[in-house]
Amino acid sequence: MHTNYTLGGILTGVLLGIYSWLSPGIDYNVTYHPKATAQLRADSRPNIVLIVADDHGREAVGCYGNTAIRTPHIDQLAADGIRFSNAFCTTASCSPSRSVLLTGLHNHTNGMYGLEHQVHHFNSFDTVRSLPVLLEQAGYRTARIGKFHVAPERTYHFQQVLKGGGTNDPASIGRSPVEMARYCYDFLKEKSDQRSDARPFFLYFASDDPHRSNTVGSDGKPIFDGSKPNVFGNRPGGYPQVGDHFYQPREVKVPTYLPDTKACRAELAQYYESVSRIDQGVGRLVDYLKEAGQYDNTLIIYLSDNGAPFPGSKTTLYEPGMRLPFIVKLPKSHKKGFVQDALISWVDVTPTLLDFAGVTNVAKQGRSFKNIIEQENVTGWDEVYASHSLHEITMYYPMRVLRERQYKLIYNVAHALPFPMALDLYNSFTWQDILRTKQNVYGKRSANAFLNRPKFELYDLQADPDEVKNLAANPKYTATLKRMQEKLKRFQQQTRDPWVSKWEFE
Amino acid sequence: MHTNYTLGGILTGVLLGIYSWLSPGIDYNVTYHPKATAQLRADSRPNIVLIVADDHGREAVGCYGNTAIRTPHIDQLAADGIRFSNAFCTTASCSPSRSVLLTGLHNHTNGMYGLEHQVHHFNSFDTVRSLPVLLEQAGYRTARIGKFHVAPERTYHFQQVLKGGGTNDPASIGRSPVEMARYCYDFLKEKSDQRSDARPFFLYFASDDPHRSNTVGSDGKPIFDGSKPNVFGNRPGGYPQVGDHFYQPREVKVPTYLPDTKACRAELAQYYESVSRIDQGVGRLVDYLKEAGQYDNTLIIYLSDNGAPFPGSKTTLYEPGMRLPFIVKLPKSHKKGFVQDALISWVDVTPTLLDFAGVTNVAKQGRSFKNIIEQENVTGWDEVYASHSLHEITMYYPMRVLRERQYKLIYNVAHALPFPMALDLYNSFTWQDILRTKQNVYGKRSANAFLNRPKFELYDLQADPDEVKNLAANPKYTATLKRMQEKLKRFQQQTRDPWVSKWEFE
Repeated sequence: MHTNYTLGGILTGVLLGIYSWLSPGIDYNVTYHPKATAQLRADSRPNIVLIVADDHGREAVGCYGNTAIRTPHIDQLAADGIRFSNAFCTTASCSPSRSVLLTGLHNHTNGMYGLEHQVHHFNSFDTVRSLPVLLEQAGYRTARIGKFHVAPERTYHFQQVLKGGGTNDPASIGRSPVEMARYCYDFLKEKSDQRSDARPFFLYFASDDPHRSNTVGSDGKPIFDGSKPNVFGNRPGGYPQVGDHFYQPREVKVPTYLPDTKACRAELAQYYESVSRIDQGVGRLVDYLKEAGQYDNTLIIYLSDNGAPFPGSKTTLYEPGMRLPFIVKLPKSHKKGFVQDALISWVDVTPTLLDFAGVTNVAKQGRSFKNIIEQENVTGWDEVYASHSLHEITMYYPMRVLRERQYKLIYNVAHALPFPMALDLYNSFTWQDILRTKQNVYGKRSANAFLNRPKFELYDLQADPDEVKNLAANPKYTATLKRMQEKLKRFQQQTRDPWVSKWEFE
Repeated sequence: MHTNYTLGGILTGVLLGIYSWLSPGIDYNVTYHPKATAQLRADSRPNIVLIVADDHGREAVGCYGNTAIRTPHIDQLAADGIRFSNAFCTTASCSPSRSVLLTGLHNHTNGMYGLEHQVHHFNSFDTVRSLPVLLEQAGYRTARIGKFHVAPERTYHFQQVLKGGGTNDPASIGRSPVEMARYCYDFLKEKSDQRSDARPFFLYFASDDPHRSNTVGSDGKPIFDGSKPNVFGNRPGGYPQVGDHFYQPREVKVPTYLPDTKACRAELAQYYESVSRIDQGVGRLVDYLKEAGQYDNTLIIYLSDNGAPFPGSKTTLYEPGMRLPFIVKLPKSHKKGFVQDALISWVDVTPTLLDFAGVTNVAKQGRSFKNIIEQENVTGWDEVYASHSLHEITMYYPMRVLRERQYKLIYNVAHALPFPMALDLYNSFTWQDILRTKQNVYGKRSANAFLNRPKFELYDLQADPDEVKNLAANPKYTATLKRMQEKLKRFQQQTRDPWVSKWEFE
């Protein structure tokens, strides 16, 4: 019933539209005409499953080179598909990053300048047309499960909200991705509804793992205890159907941006356990897709909203914060296990998924990489831009970034302020230990340098992958600095960034 | 039909509720029971007209001592009622200030941290219960005309939106308060509807005057021309039924916070003209109230959202930004022309108006001053708090203020940043002239000191009304500083201010 799209060339349609196949095969380019006469036919467009982990850093994935952590199911997805080695979020904060993922617009354009929940209260413009809404209009069945964290609901509307918590409560199902997968089963295998017996689906699967646990007091406010390791949602007795993966502090790999301390190792061990839980959720979801006979016709993406929840990664636009796992399992891979080194960012995800769904007439800031996924030595994919403005409402720290293959420019708009620490990171055992022991070394940086930043940071990533030797004031790099500043400013102008005014006013 | 409430002692009710008169006379204290059995009776509660001018500084009102400006109708309102000499907004920015006025909650509590329009996109929490909504529930007819600038609509819902623009377009009716008054006429004289023939009304009347004109280009973006005086909505030929009040630059009174320059005088002359226009709107509105037989049963308030649209006032919490005109015309005054020196702020307005409407069971952060309006030498009204966080989305500059009779403490949370200038103020002829002529004097301050501020500013307002001698570092004032810091912090804790964390973290 599900025609594999690589067979191509078959004129198909759905109740809500007709699809014109401009070219057959893997390289098809479908233009969707939503107002065309409805026809009821089998729909060969792929299902889409977008898996979004919460704070899963690239350094904590087996297939990205970590030999200590056990992520066999994510690794298998990469073995079945394509692993991107240069994939980036554009803002290392939960709600803003998800807003970019789901709109194809930088968050400074879609209005989600910071976190959505509680007092932070950011939300996107009503006029924004998001991925689930566009896919629904294109005839897809849409559902989400787990963490949402974007608003308003009407802008990010999914037809179904599957049972499963989106909170950071350890008891929440968002901490139990295997259960989450189970709650998706009916949706995955649903073969008919009132309108079509073959409509493809879009499932947005977003775990709370491996985010830090936020314990909440009776007043509803989070309780932070920096005197011991966070448990990252781990709990005694574990979660239903989740196999235990415990890690010893001595066996974790401490990435270069973190301090190799007992405190940090203890937290990394807990973090790994949480990562292994989302990994098992991925495995179960794949099992169910296979059981439902949908695996071969489903595009699966695994990514994270931002880097690991440690100072030095999440909320920063240093490499650990923005360079992330990104794995694409195509409906039919020609190059299983291929590593794609094109530079892509989360602003490209919506255009790409819309492209797979045959929707190409929607203006977005990113661009579809569908046609280059399995290409080697691609050209024209050599830079990404990033834009972060706030995390919590009190954490104003706009950064604008141009990241090329060799050089990276960070423009710290509010550089006069100390870098604001998210409450959960400030109160982490890892950071509090640094404060307690009065160390001024944090990873490869001084803690001082981490907190007090210059207006411009320019790094040669090839010579200095840890981004600690700022070349912005080095006369040898004046031309590079100027060239990248001009590009960055142009990017801000073109994407209607409100903060572009700061080039003139501050 | 309209029982004057000073006659008191008559048990009355409305269709939606019954009112229990706890004590008769001027000091009545009405508890409203919305779920009580409906009864159709004449309602003796006063009508309420809340007039909100846009950027009308206290120094540009006749009855506040300006002998050059002509504001006879506002002055007459003060002569018929009470003029407050110590009334303050809590945040000198349009949307946030209006959100405080209409909720009785500080904007850091109601969620409106900055401007509502365009990219700034701030809005209050859905859970907030605003004045118009509560008055509607209490049986009032509610309508608004002119500038709105708060969101979401459902939180700030009025039953009727009367014809009249809320934009800064010079062609807009928001610039023509006399016309605005005309469009209110039917609402004012409406004596019956389906539910009651005697329901009181709440009219929210908000002009665009005397805001600066924002000329908008074909791309929808404002055009600022700092090479000549802004026209503040004035236009050749004037507005319908508005008498001309032109002013010469030589005759304006330059307040001490502004530079006595040609540029500034030229802008003040235009500003005065705009003020005289809203004044005529007030006059016309009063005429219509009288014509409709409602004047004697209507509580009228005249105030401004924040100070004058010049650097040094609006967007700052210096006195010119926050100490504002506030005139109350009671339904029946016992002391016409009384000057009340109690310190009140905009957070008190909603509790007071609800009190007049007999609604006393709603938790608000401000408190009703209804019972002390005509009292001399009141006690317990000797301090106000102010809280400003952002104006435009790019203008992060949280300030928290405790303003007592003698001392004033300003806590500049992001003091490391240069003070951010609103685009219209930065591009004003007055400011651009300062830049062009490279003056470092601006009013009583240096331009430099205006832009770069210390963490704490402590002023003795009696010795130093211009707030230029910062006592925060003066050992003689250590105890005062500490006392006020403690109070300010407690205020932040009690009002659930997200920025209270900065006492610890920055």
